[in-house]
Amino acid sequence: MLKDFKGFRSIDKEELRSGIREEREHLSASQMKLPEAKLPVMVIFEGWNAAGKGELIGKVIRNIDPRFFKVATMDRHPNEEEKRYPFLHRYIKEIPEAGKIRFYDTCWMEEVVDNVMEGSLSDDEYKKKIRSINITERQLCDNGYLVIKFFLHISKKEQKKRLENLQSDKDTKWRVEKEDLVQNKNYDDYLEVFERYLEDTNSSRAPWYVIDAKDKKEAEYQILQYLNRGIDVALTNTKMNVPILQNTFPMKKLPKLAEIPLEGKTVSEEEYDAELEKLQKELSDLGNRLYRKKIPVIIAYEGWDAAGKGGNIKRITEALDPRDYVVEPIASPEPHEKARHYLWRFWTRLPKTGHITIFDRTWYGRVMVERLEGFCSENDWQRAYNEINEFEKELTDWGAVIIKFWIQIDKDTQLQRFTDRQNTPEKQWKITDEDWRNREKWDLYEDAVDEMIAKTSTAFAPWHIIESVDKKYARLKALRIVIEQIKKRLS
Amino acid sequence: MLKDFKGFRSIDKEELRSGIREEREHLSASQMKLPEAKLPVMVIFEGWNAAGKGELIGKVIRNIDPRFFKVATMDRHPNEEEKRYPFLHRYIKEIPEAGKIRFYDTCWMEEVVDNVMEGSLSDDEYKKKIRSINITERQLCDNGYLVIKFFLHISKKEQKKRLENLQSDKDTKWRVEKEDLVQNKNYDDYLEVFERYLEDTNSSRAPWYVIDAKDKKEAEYQILQYLNRGIDVALTNTKMNVPILQNTFPMKKLPKLAEIPLEGKTVSEEEYDAELEKLQKELSDLGNRLYRKKIPVIIAYEGWDAAGKGGNIKRITEALDPRDYVVEPIASPEPHEKARHYLWRFWTRLPKTGHITIFDRTWYGRVMVERLEGFCSENDWQRAYNEINEFEKELTDWGAVIIKFWIQIDKDTQLQRFTDRQNTPEKQWKITDEDWRNREKWDLYEDAVDEMIAKTSTAFAPWHIIESVDKKYARLKALRIVIEQIKKRLS
Repeated sequence: MLKDFKGFRSIDKEELRSGIREEREHLSASQMKLPEAKLPVMVIFEGWNAAGKGELIGKVIRNIDPRFFKVATMDRHPNEEEKRYPFLHRYIKEIPEAGKIRFYDTCWMEEVVDNVMEGSLSDDEYKKKIRSINITERQLCDNGYLVIKFFLHISKKEQKKRLENLQSDKDTKWRVEKEDLVQNKNYDDYLEVFERYLEDTNSSRAPWYVIDAKDKKEAEYQILQYLNRGIDVALTNTKMNVPILQNTFPMKKLPKLAEIPLEGKTVSEEEYDAELEKLQKELSDLGNRLYRKKIPVIIAYEGWDAAGKGGNIKRITEALDPRDYVVEPIASPEPHEKARHYLWRFWTRLPKTGHITIFDRTWYGRVMVERLEGFCSENDWQRAYNEINEFEKELTDWGAVIIKFWIQIDKDTQLQRFTDRQNTPEKQWKITDEDWRNREKWDLYEDAVDEMIAKTSTAFAPWHIIESVDKKYARLKALRIVIEQIKKRLS
Repeated sequence: MLKDFKGFRSIDKEELRSGIREEREHLSASQMKLPEAKLPVMVIFEGWNAAGKGELIGKVIRNIDPRFFKVATMDRHPNEEEKRYPFLHRYIKEIPEAGKIRFYDTCWMEEVVDNVMEGSLSDDEYKKKIRSINITERQLCDNGYLVIKFFLHISKKEQKKRLENLQSDKDTKWRVEKEDLVQNKNYDDYLEVFERYLEDTNSSRAPWYVIDAKDKKEAEYQILQYLNRGIDVALTNTKMNVPILQNTFPMKKLPKLAEIPLEGKTVSEEEYDAELEKLQKELSDLGNRLYRKKIPVIIAYEGWDAAGKGGNIKRITEALDPRDYVVEPIASPEPHEKARHYLWRFWTRLPKTGHITIFDRTWYGRVMVERLEGFCSENDWQRAYNEINEFEKELTDWGAVIIKFWIQIDKDTQLQRFTDRQNTPEKQWKITDEDWRNREKWDLYEDAVDEMIAKTSTAFAPWHIIESVDKKYARLKALRIVIEQIKKRLS
């Protein structure tokens, strides 16, 4: 893409001037349509050092009301804190909300290319990162994001000239870093890596636009044109359905809920007390080892209302050092969460390495409550199975242990517990009208759960069904699974 | 407080056992009352290294549903990113929302004491930090927070024994850090500094509870008792009015809005173009110097609807490197923001050193729209003048430049602009029914603004009134003030 790049067609000054003026006016006008269309826009600037990314972003945003955009300036290297999350984390944290534009002054490309040039990335690791990036960009597009990617291109000679100019002025000298000079010296090597990256991540949903950045005015003109055309197209695209992808992950087959026997899954008081102590002791030791080995753990709880999730979680956390874990109760999303990709609020709640996050309800809300209550479109939840599998794959590839529990009871048991809660003053806060309403939809939920389990029980993050008519039995079973999964990861 | 500490009265095993049981049950019961009472609870654990903070937090939270609490584990030293914010920032970020408990595994005390022991804090700087901490704790209490502070006390001998025990076991050896050993060696010096800190920050609203931590069970009992009594009292205290404090800050006297002549504050087209270019060039250079000198800048915009804030902000940002600033448009708070101290959403939007944040509407909403629309109580907004002055003092002490603009127009000009917006299709998004409703309350707002300006024009962060009937005049004036204030700070 760079090697056969022809450069900007030459046009005369007058044409350029009027062209820029027109495009600026167009952008000023279309920015106002973004909030109504609820369109989130990511504009990614990559390119050669000294190609003028900052300056060009500065020119483009002159035409946009500050209420509608923000600039995310990403450091070349993640800091110590950021290194404790998946590499995509610091970029995904910054995605815009609906109706807003986020400009990235470099994004995941720069980090990957730097890694390659430093030799810190094997070919396999490079391919894995490319896969992650392509999945992320596709997911963003599928969920209504407009992703526009610019690569600012200059020649070796031009780059050298610019760096020398910067260095010769005492006010700008500090802007030239050692890395810039190294890049110019090894321009041809970088060109190879850039070229490969651009080809590897060029997709029809989120294509690359190579910008001839030799002349600032011409570069601005090209950028404004692509940006405006991109927004124009995206504005006509809202509420489109997206093709549902085939599953490509290895799956683990699990029975349907109705096929799971619940009777007899009990434990005696004595056995419970003895086992609980033993298992918690074991988990406590494992927790220390996880912390020291910097392994992140994600435990996801789903299940029927009143199935006993809370008490179950408690038996896990009791065994852990309170500094090492956090429980995230998930309710309906707040406005700033709803306005972003639905996995964003989980990305931003991930544990850092060595820590454990327990989700009390999870991202699976998408294919249960959001599906059944119509909070998202059919296309949205149909697509979500694969998106979630990709999300969990990303996390296990990062090194996380993911343990997903479905806490299972039957309808009669739920009724008993609801009634008990209603009749016990200290428990009344636990039961709401919504619980009763959900109960009426039991059969619909059961179908949705069966489909969810069938479609998201991947080999790397399978569901575990926990029979919980006897809560004590359920607690021991969950503890044993957590212990087993952590041990597997530690070995 | 430590030197004359008598230790825990001895009680027999049976009394202790039943006491703990009772307190645990009490805590289990009262946690449920927190959401309804909308009570946010901060429980701060400080104390000697190896006194058992983590373990005791672990015991206490066993009695609380994970939905109701989180543990904030604060590193002994701020990381590089955290160092670029005011020292309170990383703690304030973590304050709980209404109805939740946040346990701090060490808070601002540890950092200050460490600084003193390292010799990196002069006596004046120490006093300044103590003042900041006392103000913060008082503000939290005044805004409905329950703040409970525990200091876990053990003797030099006991600490030595514990550290030796940890070191002798290969599984726990890694937990002992050099700093722990240094503390034990210099126990008496630490005792002096702890003692002074405890006395300096002991207040009736947020008193210290010194816990005899020699025996773990006894320590748990003491902690549970204090925690339960604290919550019991706080639950009876909700919706109490808080005394309004006298102003202690030097003020700058400004005229009332009605006294400010608006006519004649105009500029010719030619002068505007020439001056704008000159001033933006100057600001652009200053922006680079701020970045290099790592000085943070906060620009706060308030003003009448349609006064021209947006265009005014634009003329500032045009001169800045887009990587160095961010514009924060402030709308009504989201649920997770409303559930916290009202300044929290501004604390979490502060610029880091070397950066500029421009607030399009600000924390002054408290004494304008929230006051007039009844979104907070009279006591709340009456108290806010001083709280805001304290907040801004904290920021200027940190080294920030704060520039506050009131963009002023008269009622006729507003009507003209409203009508113009209504009649121009591309501007219609800028005008809402709410704007018309606010306009009806012009006189009430004017009184509120006069009071706000009179009470918050401190010498360190005065208001600047910008006459904006001629928007061009207003833009030049704002630019000049920004330049002047930054220059003052740089010199």
